[in-house]
Amino acid sequence: MAGGVGSRFWPYSRNDRPKQFLDFMGTGRSLLQMTFDRFAKIMPPENIFIVSNKAYKSLILEQIPMINAKQVLLEPARRNTAPCIAYAAARIHAINKDAVMVVAPSDHLITKETEFLDAVSGGLEFVSGNNRMLTLGITPNRPETGYGYIQAGKDFGGGFKKVKTFTEKPNLEMAKVFLESGEFFWNAGVFMWSVKTIRAAFKKLLPEISAVFEEGAPLMGSDSEQTYIDRYFPSCQNISIDYGIMEKADEVYVLCGDYGWSDLGTWGSLYDISPKDESANATLKGQALLYESENNIVVLPKGKIAVLQGLKDYIVVETENALLVCRKKDEQQIRKFVNDVSNLENNSDFI
Amino acid sequence: MAGGVGSRFWPYSRNDRPKQFLDFMGTGRSLLQMTFDRFAKIMPPENIFIVSNKAYKSLILEQIPMINAKQVLLEPARRNTAPCIAYAAARIHAINKDAVMVVAPSDHLITKETEFLDAVSGGLEFVSGNNRMLTLGITPNRPETGYGYIQAGKDFGGGFKKVKTFTEKPNLEMAKVFLESGEFFWNAGVFMWSVKTIRAAFKKLLPEISAVFEEGAPLMGSDSEQTYIDRYFPSCQNISIDYGIMEKADEVYVLCGDYGWSDLGTWGSLYDISPKDESANATLKGQALLYESENNIVVLPKGKIAVLQGLKDYIVVETENALLVCRKKDEQQIRKFVNDVSNLENNSDFI
Repeated sequence: MAGGVGSRFWPYSRNDRPKQFLDFMGTGRSLLQMTFDRFAKIMPPENIFIVSNKAYKSLILEQIPMINAKQVLLEPARRNTAPCIAYAAARIHAINKDAVMVVAPSDHLITKETEFLDAVSGGLEFVSGNNRMLTLGITPNRPETGYGYIQAGKDFGGGFKKVKTFTEKPNLEMAKVFLESGEFFWNAGVFMWSVKTIRAAFKKLLPEISAVFEEGAPLMGSDSEQTYIDRYFPSCQNISIDYGIMEKADEVYVLCGDYGWSDLGTWGSLYDISPKDESANATLKGQALLYESENNIVVLPKGKIAVLQGLKDYIVVETENALLVCRKKDEQQIRKFVNDVSNLENNSDFI
Repeated sequence: MAGGVGSRFWPYSRNDRPKQFLDFMGTGRSLLQMTFDRFAKIMPPENIFIVSNKAYKSLILEQIPMINAKQVLLEPARRNTAPCIAYAAARIHAINKDAVMVVAPSDHLITKETEFLDAVSGGLEFVSGNNRMLTLGITPNRPETGYGYIQAGKDFGGGFKKVKTFTEKPNLEMAKVFLESGEFFWNAGVFMWSVKTIRAAFKKLLPEISAVFEEGAPLMGSDSEQTYIDRYFPSCQNISIDYGIMEKADEVYVLCGDYGWSDLGTWGSLYDISPKDESANATLKGQALLYESENNIVVLPKGKIAVLQGLKDYIVVETENALLVCRKKDEQQIRKFVNDVSNLENNSDFI
């Protein structure tokens, strides 16, 4: 899934180059490329499909030149994860109706790749030839209020547990209770099931979305697929797979572990996992001289130098034509700032 | 005088484009151009000479295309104001030994131009045909510790007073006493005298510098002038006109007034005179959205947007390849920062 347009990382992420397309870690590979590389270790590249917005087609083919254009599924409108997954399941079903599939965001970080891939391989086996649905749960290490949690119930053996509930983002008090209980895990947005199982779940729980892809099934993989999708995809309900399917389905399991996972959802989460200097400043890109400054995260364009003095707990991000300086604790306001910028005259260069 | 290379305004000022060449006020004219325009109102442009470093010759001719290259006196080395003024006096003397001259920095701001030009015109008359030396004194409006002061003595009539002493930068306590006394004025670095008078003063008080220009006198204005200057100017003592001449000379007068003068010596002084928004933020150039921010001074390149949140009393300056964020009260550290930047590898682009 590579359709996000997140504005939380403005000005580093832009409309024409959202987070998944950026080399966030300075490794030379974007998050999308890292995600592709990861899955290509356990499956043939031709079995990897990328679902994204039409606007990003050329960017995707540029970043992942080893795939065929047909492996890029293009949404004409943003409709959250449920329609995205229904579309992918329909296409895979047209190729192999007995296939199992793993669904994953393209803009998360996984540092323990072996553990992650072992979990995916084992998970795909676990859901093969049955009607189980599986999610990956991340063992929490702090009372995080920014994630949804999965409550695990009865142990099924092999690390698999029955899911008791999916919960929304908790407040801090609740998050602390979750952490202590040992029963709650972060929802990483990684799902596994057979295409038969997920299509049956859509038919039962999101019948209108299901109908779009049942009707379109004969066109999947044909030259008419895009025309059909362009016409009918926008009519799909805007709903997440978690809310539309997972919370209501039976036979939902979770495989929990520590995969060095981060959703990189905030500058704060990026700061947390980044290498820091002796004053706990993380300079991700560019060259910065810091004086009387601590706990900052700094991202600069190549070839730029920054001299920062007297800053504590700030985000300093610069791009070719925009600069953001914002307290780390106030980063939720960035969406508002971006909105304000978009309301300026001649804003198109900035967003 | 346009030879400064001040690093206090880094990264806005650079080695290859110091403060006097910058459009500091966003008026479309650099400080040098504004200074030239100002004096051109009371004297023919061909009577204006610009003394600067050889490195800035083309920049000067580009900014002041209406002058002849011969009006630009080029120093091969930086030797403070005394040798600079001795050189200018020698050149003017070669053209007209009865001339009077006014010496002025090219990187100061004068907002009350009529008052200033009246003072200069009256001052030139005051020093004509006699051996008086005149400085402009600025009536202080605050106990500034960043300037030298002139103590005025006996009133001579017409606003002219005999100078009692030149003083170094005072501490705050002393500056308050100066302010209350009504006897002390800021030294604006603007001087008037006849070329005969200043050359006589050099002969008496700085004989070694005087000798260089007495010997070179026959070459002034000739094709050999630059060769002579290149060879002998660097041997001149590095000393200011204030310390070398004014503090020791007799017949020194001061003409005091309020000319809307600022030496623009610090970001703080620039902030003080700049228009501000309702939160007292001064955005001199570029476009900035400020949130929960006050008392900042912001300078951005054209076409750049900045979103600043949670900043109070900061300097935020960006140029094509450098960014500075620094507390206003700590701006004296900028020289050190620039020195650190210059010690980096591949620093030449940044300084």
